Amino acid sequence: MSRRIRLILSYDGTEFSGWQVQPGLPTIQSHLEEIFLAIERKRVHVAGSGRTDAGVHALAQVAAVTLDNPIPVRNLKKAVNRLLPAGIRVMRAEEVPAEFHPRFDALEKTYEYRIWRGETVSPFDARYLHHHPFPMSDEKFIAAAPLLVGEHDFAAFAAADDADYPGRSKVRKIFASEARRDGDLLIYRVTGGGFLKHMVRNIVGTLLEAGKGNVDAERMRWLLSAPPGVRATPTAPAKGLFLVEVKYQY
Amino acid sequence: MSRRIRLILSYDGTEFSGWQVQPGLPTIQSHLEEIFLAIERKRVHVAGSGRTDAGVHALAQVAAVTLDNPIPVRNLKKAVNRLLPAGIRVMRAEEVPAEFHPRFDALEKTYEYRIWRGETVSPFDARYLHHHPFPMSDEKFIAAAPLLVGEHDFAAFAAADDADYPGRSKVRKIFASEARRDGDLLIYRVTGGGFLKHMVRNIVGTLLEAGKGNVDAERMRWLLSAPPGVRATPTAPAKGLFLVEVKYQY
Repeated sequence: MSRRIRLILSYDGTEFSGWQVQPGLPTIQSHLEEIFLAIERKRVHVAGSGRTDAGVHALAQVAAVTLDNPIPVRNLKKAVNRLLPAGIRVMRAEEVPAEFHPRFDALEKTYEYRIWRGETVSPFDARYLHHHPFPMSDEKFIAAAPLLVGEHDFAAFAAADDADYPGRSKVRKIFASEARRDGDLLIYRVTGGGFLKHMVRNIVGTLLEAGKGNVDAERMRWLLSAPPGVRATPTAPAKGLFLVEVKYQY
Repeated sequence: MSRRIRLILSYDGTEFSGWQVQPGLPTIQSHLEEIFLAIERKRVHVAGSGRTDAGVHALAQVAAVTLDNPIPVRNLKKAVNRLLPAGIRVMRAEEVPAEFHPRFDALEKTYEYRIWRGETVSPFDARYLHHHPFPMSDEKFIAAAPLLVGEHDFAAFAAADDADYPGRSKVRKIFASEARRDGDLLIYRVTGGGFLKHMVRNIVGTLLEAGKGNVDAERMRWLLSAPPGVRATPTAPAKGLFLVEVKYQY
């Protein structure tokens, strides 16, 4: 009897070439598929809730596998963690209904982006922050964040190389979008039904421009329904971004 | 007019071969001396409050240099940080009296050792914890910690290869020594006038033995005045250890 197993994963994106399998590159998915090949003695597809770019971190990425091996989930978690590099960990493993799919069943996803406004970045945080010590109005950055809420055409916030899906709708719905200062940290948090490639990093790039006074509310609203070919701004660096949570009905 | 400058340094010990210059190895001291050679256009000795082993971290190591270059300390800090790898940072730089020496003037030093008692270590903490999920009495570990307080002959807690200083006194004074649980974290903190090579890691190794029931209070007291040739226990791994603070009169 095969079982469907959901895995909640944390990873430090620094040393990996993102989520998705790419020949010859160390990705999260390839590390996992290699381990499940050893456990199942056949190729196993590890489905994820979505791709994360190279350098992007996850506190709770969600993945799923279908296994024949009857190993109890608690032991499975331990066995997989013993074989994974220290930068990737299964934080939880649980049986779910056979039809569970981490991508198609996701109700909402939350990302967080961390910007360090101080002069000096601690060596213990250097891999997990975008260092932006330059003059800027944090108030304007914070005030612009809620403008993203709602259903918009995010074509201007899609990846420059988003040629995989020409003609596909770039309309997405954002449920929450807010920024706050916590000491020298400027934290942006966004929850939505789904995100395009590079979308969060392009939103952050645009909020940084808002902070610098280059993008006002009117310009932001225009970008959120911009004609094809318009690109918002430079993409903020991957290392400040965390996939924080993916929500499901069960 | 030359100036004496005190540097407060943080470093992630993971990628370095400890504090002290070793030919061909990436050490904290060599990184700094190379940078000051460029700034001063001559060899500059960077004195530290003490060596840290390969893999040991520092929240606030203290170092000092004497410079002819008249660059203001605020700019010096920025310039040095621009040249350092991200794993080492000058957190503060300040002028001090010419006679200041970070090692000889140190009044006390505080170290912290972090042990993870949970089943799974987050990828974001993996470099900064000793993972010890095995059965043990944390209460016994915590109860044994204060036994270290006072002036003792720590010969049994010195490094096995401590052949550098044969015959030198191994008597040291410990001002505070305590352990506590914080969630799945078991934290040991010790403050003393000075420490032998590997001393804190050997103390932690012994406290782990106390937790396992292999070292009781009587045995601990005996180890603290043990005859030559006695070695306490295996040395706890470097990556759980942080140099937290060094105190001076000024």
